[in-house]
Amino acid sequence: MKFTTLDDGTPDGRLHLVSRDLARIQPADGVVALQALLEAWDTHAPALEQQYAALNAGGGTPFDVGRALAPLPRAWQWLDGSAYQSHGELMAKVFGKKAETEASRPLMYQGISDHFLAPTQDVPLPSEDDGIDFEGEFGIICDEVPMGTTADAARGHIRLLVQINDWSLRAIAPLEMVTGFGWVQCKPACSMAPVAVTPDELGAQWRDARIDLPLLVDWNGERFGAARGYEMGFGFDQLIAHAARTRRLVAGTVIGSGTVSNPDFREVGSSCIAERRGIEMLDLGGAKTGFMRFGDRVRMECIGADGVSVFGAIDQTVVKA
Amino acid sequence: MKFTTLDDGTPDGRLHLVSRDLARIQPADGVVALQALLEAWDTHAPALEQQYAALNAGGGTPFDVGRALAPLPRAWQWLDGSAYQSHGELMAKVFGKKAETEASRPLMYQGISDHFLAPTQDVPLPSEDDGIDFEGEFGIICDEVPMGTTADAARGHIRLLVQINDWSLRAIAPLEMVTGFGWVQCKPACSMAPVAVTPDELGAQWRDARIDLPLLVDWNGERFGAARGYEMGFGFDQLIAHAARTRRLVAGTVIGSGTVSNPDFREVGSSCIAERRGIEMLDLGGAKTGFMRFGDRVRMECIGADGVSVFGAIDQTVVKA
Repeated sequence: MKFTTLDDGTPDGRLHLVSRDLARIQPADGVVALQALLEAWDTHAPALEQQYAALNAGGGTPFDVGRALAPLPRAWQWLDGSAYQSHGELMAKVFGKKAETEASRPLMYQGISDHFLAPTQDVPLPSEDDGIDFEGEFGIICDEVPMGTTADAARGHIRLLVQINDWSLRAIAPLEMVTGFGWVQCKPACSMAPVAVTPDELGAQWRDARIDLPLLVDWNGERFGAARGYEMGFGFDQLIAHAARTRRLVAGTVIGSGTVSNPDFREVGSSCIAERRGIEMLDLGGAKTGFMRFGDRVRMECIGADGVSVFGAIDQTVVKA
Repeated sequence: MKFTTLDDGTPDGRLHLVSRDLARIQPADGVVALQALLEAWDTHAPALEQQYAALNAGGGTPFDVGRALAPLPRAWQWLDGSAYQSHGELMAKVFGKKAETEASRPLMYQGISDHFLAPTQDVPLPSEDDGIDFEGEFGIICDEVPMGTTADAARGHIRLLVQINDWSLRAIAPLEMVTGFGWVQCKPACSMAPVAVTPDELGAQWRDARIDLPLLVDWNGERFGAARGYEMGFGFDQLIAHAARTRRLVAGTVIGSGTVSNPDFREVGSSCIAERRGIEMLDLGGAKTGFMRFGDRVRMECIGADGVSVFGAIDQTVVKA
């Protein structure tokens, strides 16, 4: 199934089913908002599957992505991993840190989840001097996960896949990183692509709890990266188990992959500016690429094996808050 | 005004007013839950003030603290500071880190907020080997705070004061601290004392956006600490401004002080075991005090200038999850 949430003036919006080709939508019958579905998935899913089949056969109304909010416009919990080792190792090399930890256990932080930005809305940020950067990621949304759940058991809790831009303010990052307390100021609200999909929609491109498709990132209309999603050092199942080690995860918890990155980043490009700057530091002795300016635009999209956009596009402009 | 939330089977519970002496309660008329009040404080406050005055004059029903949830049983955002410099400096000394950062800008992390434990419920944790520790803190709950709000302007957004136990798993802390990503596994759900109060209830004991009262901490029936709340290096106004630098704060955001601590911790004691162990490392060459065991109990309370418990007591037993 594919879902989107339209703005109806309420904080949680109105849940809609989206046809497989992303062309048409209809309101989900029996469930008003995505959070409610995640809290009682097994209750609602059979009826929604029927509605989805009927929508794919015809009917519905055209999908106007400009009305879409984030599929989950607010979540009780957002935990972001950093599961691509090529990114972690590069950053460690550039900043002179040891990357050992990354190999033995996932990196993860808890970020702002009271609002996710809509996929086409402007992104208000306070200052260009903060080093405005995008981070293209994949993510999952789970139902309730008991404390102590194993990675194997975690797979059954992955209800939806999503695509995320984890906005980052790089000038603040070193100040926060040195404290050991993690990110607050350097991680403002994230954006989410307009469509959330059940894992079965990806077919063979969902394997080992990873999305085996590239993430296409364009900055001001130029291709910036097309890194492959599969190459996570830890799958989403392992990220869930890591998060659930000492807490139960509330239904609707969103877990991110971290910046999609591949070892051949010089060929496939990067999903964030910081990575490209890191490559420049290694190859050229210094970073050449600047961070984003107000008025800059970033577009992120993932095309499925069937040629259809999996999550729809995030396409946003950064503006002065 | 003083508020508590009783368990009525819903996730947000039922908001009640509590008499000034904490003896009696009555359901808040016109507002079902605390989150709704925080989202429209000015709309609801005048009528609640009248109800509160009437309750203090008589009426209501006895306050059975065993039915109380956390005043805000779940919040969209929980940001915990570490604003007591004596604690930060001691920890830095013991663990060989520089404490510079702490002096120039507040330490803060984002933690789990989808549930706060009720003040007298058992605390389920997975393993004694994780180094189970309490952290007695004060906190504030704000209404919506725009991005870029100054410390001066932040004071007007402080709607409620609360008392918190920020449970910590110390054996995991060094593994997470070294990553720079902050705490996930080492910070399970926090507990909140049963009563949230408006700042005016503290009279002269609310000054400079700090609570000028000691926090009494008892571990298995013995006094462990009575540190003074006032001695924060940054007031709650500054903590709010720090948090709101690059994000708007959603109404109902909870911000914590970090472990209450004073420079004369050898006399007044500590609000967490880690601090006492740090003192032992300095004074005795090694930590003597162990962390908590299943079956251990911790009680935290703050007594006002009028001799009445300000927030009611947190009184909990740690159990195997």
